[in-house]
Amino acid sequence: MALLANDLLLRALRREPVPRPPVWMMRQAGRYLPEYRAVRAGSDFLTMCRTPALATEVTLQPVDLVGVDAAIIFSDILVIPEAMGMTLTLDEGVGPQFPRPLRSASDVSGLRRVDAETDLGYMLEAIRMTRRELDGRVPLIGFAGAPWTLAAYMVEGRGTKQFAIAKRLLFEAPATAHALLDQLAIAVGEFLLAQARAGAQVLQLFDSWAGALGPEEYRTFALPAFAKAARIAKQAGVPLIAFAPGGGWALDEIAEATGADALGVDWHQAPQDARVRVGNRAVAFQGNLDPCALYAPVDEIRRRAHAMIRGFGRVGHVANLGHGILPDTPVAHARAFVDAVREWEWNAVDDATSSPTLATVA
Amino acid sequence: MALLANDLLLRALRREPVPRPPVWMMRQAGRYLPEYRAVRAGSDFLTMCRTPALATEVTLQPVDLVGVDAAIIFSDILVIPEAMGMTLTLDEGVGPQFPRPLRSASDVSGLRRVDAETDLGYMLEAIRMTRRELDGRVPLIGFAGAPWTLAAYMVEGRGTKQFAIAKRLLFEAPATAHALLDQLAIAVGEFLLAQARAGAQVLQLFDSWAGALGPEEYRTFALPAFAKAARIAKQAGVPLIAFAPGGGWALDEIAEATGADALGVDWHQAPQDARVRVGNRAVAFQGNLDPCALYAPVDEIRRRAHAMIRGFGRVGHVANLGHGILPDTPVAHARAFVDAVREWEWNAVDDATSSPTLATVA
Repeated sequence: MALLANDLLLRALRREPVPRPPVWMMRQAGRYLPEYRAVRAGSDFLTMCRTPALATEVTLQPVDLVGVDAAIIFSDILVIPEAMGMTLTLDEGVGPQFPRPLRSASDVSGLRRVDAETDLGYMLEAIRMTRRELDGRVPLIGFAGAPWTLAAYMVEGRGTKQFAIAKRLLFEAPATAHALLDQLAIAVGEFLLAQARAGAQVLQLFDSWAGALGPEEYRTFALPAFAKAARIAKQAGVPLIAFAPGGGWALDEIAEATGADALGVDWHQAPQDARVRVGNRAVAFQGNLDPCALYAPVDEIRRRAHAMIRGFGRVGHVANLGHGILPDTPVAHARAFVDAVREWEWNAVDDATSSPTLATVA
Repeated sequence: MALLANDLLLRALRREPVPRPPVWMMRQAGRYLPEYRAVRAGSDFLTMCRTPALATEVTLQPVDLVGVDAAIIFSDILVIPEAMGMTLTLDEGVGPQFPRPLRSASDVSGLRRVDAETDLGYMLEAIRMTRRELDGRVPLIGFAGAPWTLAAYMVEGRGTKQFAIAKRLLFEAPATAHALLDQLAIAVGEFLLAQARAGAQVLQLFDSWAGALGPEEYRTFALPAFAKAARIAKQAGVPLIAFAPGGGWALDEIAEATGADALGVDWHQAPQDARVRVGNRAVAFQGNLDPCALYAPVDEIRRRAHAMIRGFGRVGHVANLGHGILPDTPVAHARAFVDAVREWEWNAVDDATSSPTLATVA
């Protein structure tokens, strides 16, 4: 393996000095790219996930076409429930579904224990193949869904606005919920470990439905399982990013419980508020431009990208969107965002005009 | 008109001493009640809204059947866009839709100016009829949707997870967005004024999709229009409750801008955090039990209701859910929540064990 030609991401995650923040975009290998749609026209989404050559091809596209500083392996968070024995379908326009969702304690106890190497080998192979193709240009990020988010999908059978059926399980049958979350925490943590061993140089845990829970349930159910998965994954010795959209109020608790190197910040939260929330903990941030801001004219995108960079400050920031890029985003606008970050130079900025860093907030 | 036999709501909104908080539930006239479903079986939702006798009947049901301390007139926030000339449909299982959503500046300039008395007279008549039927037992709440929430529906045509089309308008055509929001602010404010003149004793403004916007867009677009509507409504001289779910981070700014007497708090935010957020502003709170908590056993519902009451403290709290009650909530559980609030006695509580009130937080 070649040394990394571009290690900005790793340096920012370690909170080392960088001339500018690294930049990548959640869902950067996605439908806004015509080249992605061309691959997608020949294969359904799940086939792309399961075919390492296809997953590798689309993983590389944003590196080649948009100039991001990191690749993230193309896959889906729902591969774990599928490996546990659930049937996963993905119909056009409907989104991923489990036609036979979990609805009882016996459904939960019937789930298989996952062996990442045998059950999810296709993703590990995609990671190995992508690492070879990247040849050290930029680091590769592996990822998984966090236990609560996976549990919410598994119980509902599909994404919903409120996740009321999944929450009903927490309130009505907390012991069953804990059993499910604990089993998922182990599967998720071990899967991330396997991804790092296959070559992922950074790991990200997505608790996409953190915002479906109020503080008491988040602390009782979601956070302990998130933390357990994170602690297992941390054994890999590579940096871990924890992203819990809708959980901005809990950034300090998430940092504490997971030991993550960086916290994803969604677009609901001002960068300065995220910094204030974690106090003087030595943690980096990733985020957080509203994906809808990429609808704005390119001058406005540039202004907002720079405001975001100033907002997070010069230490420990990975520039990203605050949620996945939307399919109807103009490619030129995605590029304008990436370019705006790439042109930034901290050394050219008068320190007096920069926004608070940890040192000034603490 | 009779004097109010139960004026707990008005006293709590004025932050006067009360032996216990008043309690009502958002969507309390709704599908969880068999008696509501019986009315609904004979009429579609919009017909119920437009027929004062039916609206009055279901408005009274939770007062009679569940024992809440306030009635809220049965209606829908989308009656204003309809009065502006948009076609509103409501198909079973799909939710309200505008088949011809606003997609251009000329669509916006083609909207009619609303005259509440002539265009929305059916709701004013329902308010007058309900006041007669209530005969002073409990106060009646009138309401309307806030401009941003209405605009989001009008542009999207229906509820969505992300409101990306509506947000695209803000980013791509801010002048058109401001024109729409301003026109809505006037219509909403005047409609609330008319409701108060028809007999509504309290008014509530729902900015249900506040959470779809990040801080910059919320401050630029949603909040000024919300505030304009609120300031017009305040001319009625009755208490105003401002509820912006997902906007908990902005409670202080909402209090300042709207001059509302009370702020709704959604279930994402701990009661103490809401208190801290507004500092020493003299504002009451309304909320905020997670509607999903009504799935819990009744003992647990009681425990959580009491924890919520302690959390908000004894001055200026209206007990409520943090979002609308869900259709599959057992009636006995809704009653358990209401009963738990009704049995509370502040005077029986040792002050030393009560949670922070404004005085101790400030």
